[in-house]
Amino acid sequence: MITFKTSKESLQIYYKDQLIINHSYKNPSFYLGNGMETIDSYRGNYKIEDYIESRIPLKSFVLSEKEVKFYHQDLELILNLKEEDDRLIVDFKTNQPMNRFWMRIHALEDEKVYGCGEQASYFNLRHRNYPLWTSEPGVGRDKKTLTTFYADLHDKAGGDYYTTYYPEPTFVSTRKYWLHVDSFAYAEFNFKHHDFHELFFWETPKQMILNFKDTYLNLVNDLTNYTKLPPKLPEFLLDGMVIGVQGGLNQVLTYLRQAQHAGVKVSGIWAQDWAGHNYTSFGKRLYWNWKLNENVYPNLKEEIKKLNQENVAFLTYICPFLLENESLFNEGKSHGYLALTKDGHVYKEDFGEFYCGIVDLTNPKAFDWYKNVIKTNLIDLGIRGWMADFGEYLPVDCVLHNGIDAKLMHNEWPVLWAKCNYEAVKESNMLEKVFYFMRAGAHGSQHYATSLWAGDQSVNWETHDGIASVIPSALSTGIIGNPFTHSDIGGYTSLHGNIRTKELFDRWLEMNVFTSYMRTHEGNRPTQNFQFYHDNDTLKLMARMTAIRVELKPYIAHLYEEAVTKGYPVQRPIFMHYEKDSTAYDLQYEYLFGADVYIKPVVQPNQKQQTVILPEDEWIHLWTGARYDKGGVITVDCPVGYPPVFYRFKSEFRGLFEKITQNYNL
Amino acid sequence: MITFKTSKESLQIYYKDQLIINHSYKNPSFYLGNGMETIDSYRGNYKIEDYIESRIPLKSFVLSEKEVKFYHQDLELILNLKEEDDRLIVDFKTNQPMNRFWMRIHALEDEKVYGCGEQASYFNLRHRNYPLWTSEPGVGRDKKTLTTFYADLHDKAGGDYYTTYYPEPTFVSTRKYWLHVDSFAYAEFNFKHHDFHELFFWETPKQMILNFKDTYLNLVNDLTNYTKLPPKLPEFLLDGMVIGVQGGLNQVLTYLRQAQHAGVKVSGIWAQDWAGHNYTSFGKRLYWNWKLNENVYPNLKEEIKKLNQENVAFLTYICPFLLENESLFNEGKSHGYLALTKDGHVYKEDFGEFYCGIVDLTNPKAFDWYKNVIKTNLIDLGIRGWMADFGEYLPVDCVLHNGIDAKLMHNEWPVLWAKCNYEAVKESNMLEKVFYFMRAGAHGSQHYATSLWAGDQSVNWETHDGIASVIPSALSTGIIGNPFTHSDIGGYTSLHGNIRTKELFDRWLEMNVFTSYMRTHEGNRPTQNFQFYHDNDTLKLMARMTAIRVELKPYIAHLYEEAVTKGYPVQRPIFMHYEKDSTAYDLQYEYLFGADVYIKPVVQPNQKQQTVILPEDEWIHLWTGARYDKGGVITVDCPVGYPPVFYRFKSEFRGLFEKITQNYNL
Repeated sequence: MITFKTSKESLQIYYKDQLIINHSYKNPSFYLGNGMETIDSYRGNYKIEDYIESRIPLKSFVLSEKEVKFYHQDLELILNLKEEDDRLIVDFKTNQPMNRFWMRIHALEDEKVYGCGEQASYFNLRHRNYPLWTSEPGVGRDKKTLTTFYADLHDKAGGDYYTTYYPEPTFVSTRKYWLHVDSFAYAEFNFKHHDFHELFFWETPKQMILNFKDTYLNLVNDLTNYTKLPPKLPEFLLDGMVIGVQGGLNQVLTYLRQAQHAGVKVSGIWAQDWAGHNYTSFGKRLYWNWKLNENVYPNLKEEIKKLNQENVAFLTYICPFLLENESLFNEGKSHGYLALTKDGHVYKEDFGEFYCGIVDLTNPKAFDWYKNVIKTNLIDLGIRGWMADFGEYLPVDCVLHNGIDAKLMHNEWPVLWAKCNYEAVKESNMLEKVFYFMRAGAHGSQHYATSLWAGDQSVNWETHDGIASVIPSALSTGIIGNPFTHSDIGGYTSLHGNIRTKELFDRWLEMNVFTSYMRTHEGNRPTQNFQFYHDNDTLKLMARMTAIRVELKPYIAHLYEEAVTKGYPVQRPIFMHYEKDSTAYDLQYEYLFGADVYIKPVVQPNQKQQTVILPEDEWIHLWTGARYDKGGVITVDCPVGYPPVFYRFKSEFRGLFEKITQNYNL
Repeated sequence: MITFKTSKESLQIYYKDQLIINHSYKNPSFYLGNGMETIDSYRGNYKIEDYIESRIPLKSFVLSEKEVKFYHQDLELILNLKEEDDRLIVDFKTNQPMNRFWMRIHALEDEKVYGCGEQASYFNLRHRNYPLWTSEPGVGRDKKTLTTFYADLHDKAGGDYYTTYYPEPTFVSTRKYWLHVDSFAYAEFNFKHHDFHELFFWETPKQMILNFKDTYLNLVNDLTNYTKLPPKLPEFLLDGMVIGVQGGLNQVLTYLRQAQHAGVKVSGIWAQDWAGHNYTSFGKRLYWNWKLNENVYPNLKEEIKKLNQENVAFLTYICPFLLENESLFNEGKSHGYLALTKDGHVYKEDFGEFYCGIVDLTNPKAFDWYKNVIKTNLIDLGIRGWMADFGEYLPVDCVLHNGIDAKLMHNEWPVLWAKCNYEAVKESNMLEKVFYFMRAGAHGSQHYATSLWAGDQSVNWETHDGIASVIPSALSTGIIGNPFTHSDIGGYTSLHGNIRTKELFDRWLEMNVFTSYMRTHEGNRPTQNFQFYHDNDTLKLMARMTAIRVELKPYIAHLYEEAVTKGYPVQRPIFMHYEKDSTAYDLQYEYLFGADVYIKPVVQPNQKQQTVILPEDEWIHLWTGARYDKGGVITVDCPVGYPPVFYRFKSEFRGLFEKITQNYNL
């Protein structure tokens, strides 16, 4: 199904009759060159400048069977094209070492593209350039806000529309193809041009893989067969919510009882401070030596067993950094398991008032050692889930065991970290019973990360870093094969005057009923921000929303099943099921929760009503039973606890939804 | 004196035994390519993005007598090298139309460079990249300040370290050469690399001119012989100050009498509102129809004569834009003298709540017509000086009479505007009697602009756009051949909460005694900001400072003479006279006022003392007579009215300075 059209000065490459490469002398499709980057980093934020020394168009070409050589004088790029598993595979090879590579994929004027990892600002990536480099996403992420201004000023941490924990050179086009490039190098995917997408890498990628399908569902299914599916999430996530609390055993049990007393269905406690605390000017942080702190959580193993008996799971936290001079650090250092500086010392990464060593996951022994830390210190303790934090910080100037430049390993790091967690769980025979959630990602996270979370949003309503931003984040990771994600209920980052309000928490809570699972977070400055355990009204709301969540269990279990068999994301863009709806392709603050539920969460303060654009179908408003036969633009009331949610009249789960309407109506 | 060294893979070009071009296969010196820019403009602020499609190193070379061909395959760049007037001239020619050109000039690790037009943030340009594109410089010019943040947010007008009214592809190196490239295209001079300077243009420049000299004085002299010297400033500027006031004839005469009564030596009134007023949200602006408004200034010609009899000159304002539907606009339009849109209508430029036509200075008839407007409406009225405002706004999408792309004319526009003023004065036989001051500049301004002013600073103490910024501005324009500049006493832009204080005005006043001439400005929002005419204490200070200024007349007249005969700037970097002083090359907030006076102005609020680094010489503190035999680091008191000023003990003007010490001491 690979075909070529050629003339003296042009070459078109088609796959399944669709034009992919539209090369001509005048508009070449491939360029090779050399560049010299400077990368300044500060606590996970990177300033990257690229000096392009040369960019040479490869105008000339020679076509032979299944191989095309593009060249300029003695500089050659060879494309080896083949079809495998009904997909197009293109291998690249150059005859000279060049560290910059550009490729143009044919594009249509009105084409839209989605994916490239987790994108929190814009779901449709067209008309923008996307640097792909894992990093802190930034605080504010919008140069027009004061939050961003102050974050830049004080911490170089403001971020921008493209900064993300999880970049990936993989996207889905409305031409109904997906495309992945096999490279972890720094890349830029430039979707600004009207007739091509330009994909740029700091190396010649090994391979490009691409496929066309007839529907978006089949497209995502095909892509996720390629990326490989994740294990199913544990069932306890369907039986209530996970409360994110901390402060020691007595404290978290007190919060649990308080919530249960208020009628909240709690199926998990996430106590991240199991290893103890560390106080910095940023806020209350964890003690980065990943061993149970018996002073804070005495007799935890037994306590976990007791909690399990009442169907409450215990969750906690780990990351691949080790606090300087603490026991795990010392052990890793003595074995040579930590990444080094260029002059052979243990590399110490600045985390803001404390320094940590980096477990060298490229060293198979270090990898196994740390896998065992997870098995022994977490899984054996009975812990059923954890935040597998970080992954986006690998410093580009450290020296790794595998000898590969850390600059080229930087983007791969998150998936090594995911794999370490995955193997720990798998080798403990706990897949589908134990899970973890990650913010950093890379190609492979689809399989190795049991779920994602959207990271550290600001505790406010700002478009690019507040509550709204978790929706495009979920849609973009979902469409490239990560079916399970969620976000901190209430957000996390309270800096530069942003303080979480009750209203923000409540809206985030009601939205997250309609995501993979529900989990709260106290945020970086717990005492200064709204917490549910200080507010009876919110506890009541939690009781209501978890009751609804539990009512939805059969439906959500069905979504879990679809996720791990077909790769369909739990949160889906509207167009995934309504391809003919031309307006749907630009919507990013509403989504389908499975095929049958539409939600447009309330992401603005003081909102009394919400206008929604329902795709053409028969919809029932979940809180009133009002029926909308043809979809269209409608407005509904949206008091707290009643986010604008609709279900399909024709859903096989209609009975379940009708029951919710009866019992939880407006 | 042009010599070559060559091997198989390398070619070095020397001039006067100094290495200029250090070319090798591995590190080529020339690149050609193609790019596609996008230029968004908003009221004189430009956002430029450049997509570089190709950048091809020209590795191969063929050397023949006085000609070098650099090439890659069939792409050729031919350098024709010759020595003329004891300078190196290199002509460039390519054999294919390419719109991007890069050239590398050999550089030393510790070399410093200065110039590139008016640079308000950094005098030494090394380690930074300088886009060269005339524009509004911005409000704040520092992304770390709130002023800049709000200016960006509201008006896209924050600017940055390199934004300038006056960019020029001309610089002076501490290797003791000057270099100019003959091109008005958008350019970037990148001084970030340790072993080369990269000069980038949106065209193949016609020519590069370069020369070495033994001293900085000789270097500047040689450069200014090349750029050509300006006429001398009129003598009345030595006899007192120019007060910038407005509000109609009675009002400005009232201010004059008030100042004279307080003992201020006033030698000119600058009444910019001679054509009337226009009120916008930005502030009080002028009525852009450059004809005397008889209602506001009745019988002005006679009044000017009377003022001249008491040695008070009358100054005013003009710019090359014409208010829509007013008489000059209509006249210009009817003759086809205004720039057009692509579809043949008169181009109307947005100036913030009003629109103007653009006099098409590339049309010789329009040029002559507007020259006559200056002659008739200004010079014939008896006006002795004016602000020849703007020049940096030429829209890139307008259509000009000469048929050249406005994008390529944009940077040349300021010098066309300067030339129009110059010829009007010259043809009126008023050179050296009548002058004007300009903010926008380009190569040629050195000769055609009778003087510069530093433009619209913020009325505050911020480093990159407040009082301090006018010092590097003066030093950078001075070193490339603009001997005469000055700044608005008190600054201009009052936006985003910046309000001019008395202290700021007073410090600016005392500094400007030691510049080409003294002129105040009311600013964009006169009523909200400090004005001298409301403050008797400041009027007394003006009396003191103008008295000192007049005492200095013989010395400053000598500086004027040096300027127009040797090209020495009135304000000079310390190293110009103290080449051996290695610390002097990084100083930018102190300068020499001629060879014999050192000043480090007070540019911070609440300052009681100032530490200065005097070069090695015998210096006398002007206000105490204290003698410092060897220079060095010393600290002096600096109450208002006594800025840190020192004179050379060996100055031939010592008697004059001693008299000032006697009469105006601390």
